[in-house]
Amino acid sequence: MAYELYYWDGLQGRGEFIRLALEEAGAEYVDMARRPGGVQAMMRLMRNAAGPAKPFAPPFLKDGEVIVSHVANILFYLGPKLGLAPQDEALRHAVHALELTITDLVTEAHDTHHPIANSLYYEDQKAAAKARSSAFIEQRIPKFFGHFAGILEQSGGTWLLGDEFSYVDLSLFQAIEGLHYAFPRALSGFARSWPGLMGLRDAVRTRPNIARYLKSERRIPFNETGIFRHYPELDQASPD
Amino acid sequence: MAYELYYWDGLQGRGEFIRLALEEAGAEYVDMARRPGGVQAMMRLMRNAAGPAKPFAPPFLKDGEVIVSHVANILFYLGPKLGLAPQDEALRHAVHALELTITDLVTEAHDTHHPIANSLYYEDQKAAAKARSSAFIEQRIPKFFGHFAGILEQSGGTWLLGDEFSYVDLSLFQAIEGLHYAFPRALSGFARSWPGLMGLRDAVRTRPNIARYLKSERRIPFNETGIFRHYPELDQASPD
Repeated sequence: MAYELYYWDGLQGRGEFIRLALEEAGAEYVDMARRPGGVQAMMRLMRNAAGPAKPFAPPFLKDGEVIVSHVANILFYLGPKLGLAPQDEALRHAVHALELTITDLVTEAHDTHHPIANSLYYEDQKAAAKARSSAFIEQRIPKFFGHFAGILEQSGGTWLLGDEFSYVDLSLFQAIEGLHYAFPRALSGFARSWPGLMGLRDAVRTRPNIARYLKSERRIPFNETGIFRHYPELDQASPD
Repeated sequence: MAYELYYWDGLQGRGEFIRLALEEAGAEYVDMARRPGGVQAMMRLMRNAAGPAKPFAPPFLKDGEVIVSHVANILFYLGPKLGLAPQDEALRHAVHALELTITDLVTEAHDTHHPIANSLYYEDQKAAAKARSSAFIEQRIPKFFGHFAGILEQSGGTWLLGDEFSYVDLSLFQAIEGLHYAFPRALSGFARSWPGLMGLRDAVRTRPNIARYLKSERRIPFNETGIFRHYPELDQASPD
């Protein structure tokens, strides 16, 4: 039975981390909210879901009767089923920790344009957004990249686990792509500063299923309704 | 062998969610950073840790040679070992999703006093903190509480899983305690508005191991270096 992915239509957003894993594995899935009436069906399902698996917010995955929500949780669940997670229990938790660090990066990237409240327009929190973006570019991006670059270097391979590819490589690729879209000035020295991460990004991009997906209509372009938004006034040169 | 918990000394912070699970289970553990020289040892361990399990930030847990970081990941790892997680795989992911929703609540509670950057003093981001706190109190706390109250009501029991106690009940208790500490005015109608959550909070508080722990010196009082900080100027009456 096909997996059912539920996420807002029209943006990559948090759903994209799940799409990339499903696409890489060549899994059968339906992007439910992109069908006619799909968003309404998703809202109804969220409202009516009973029991502790009731999602707080999209994305969530339906696998038969099982509902799993939160990106990192969905990937932890799917990883072994899609052949994108290591066998060893401790390593699985290591990959999950890396994914949760990406979750934090994604939240912080979102909050650069919405530092006060999601319910307010960007235009109504622009000054705070500028201040938060500066700190994010100057302090947080280097800290996150430094963490992943260090692990990658120690791994001795192309991937965060060395020679073993896993779903977190896809998520790191997506985070790097998103940051390039949102902050092209800040990321202009990326290839020079972070050659290992550049290598991982290129290696993901040229995996056959991913390359095919990125060229397809299923890959929604980055835009200003997603997590990673390009507001030129929030972008600035990076410290190094 | 005793579990080794690594977290900053002097605050409950994110470490408290792990302490509560270890205390409830009566597990042997050492709160490493609270020993003389402990913070330095923790920093050294973080810097020198090799491999993909290298923590991005405290808290992390050492279980023999295994290192696990991120609160929700640590609890997912510890849950079955401490008898605080359900057996069923789908239910485990449901509990993990609930824990990740609490993670989001905790991040948002933190950002009420640091909406711009962690590297700035609270005093230097006070206006933004006031705006973010208002939105958090008016929109986000009711949304989070509504989600957990709904699941609790459907469960038909004292706990989020009904009659089965799990680590996420401890985490929800801690979040409720923290919000009461930070925002007493906003939470003044809590018992009336959220009787189910009030019941869960009291039921956790009177579990023998938890009651003993809360009275011990191991329970650090809430203070203004933690996640939940009481700045009276950020507090305000709740909408209902």
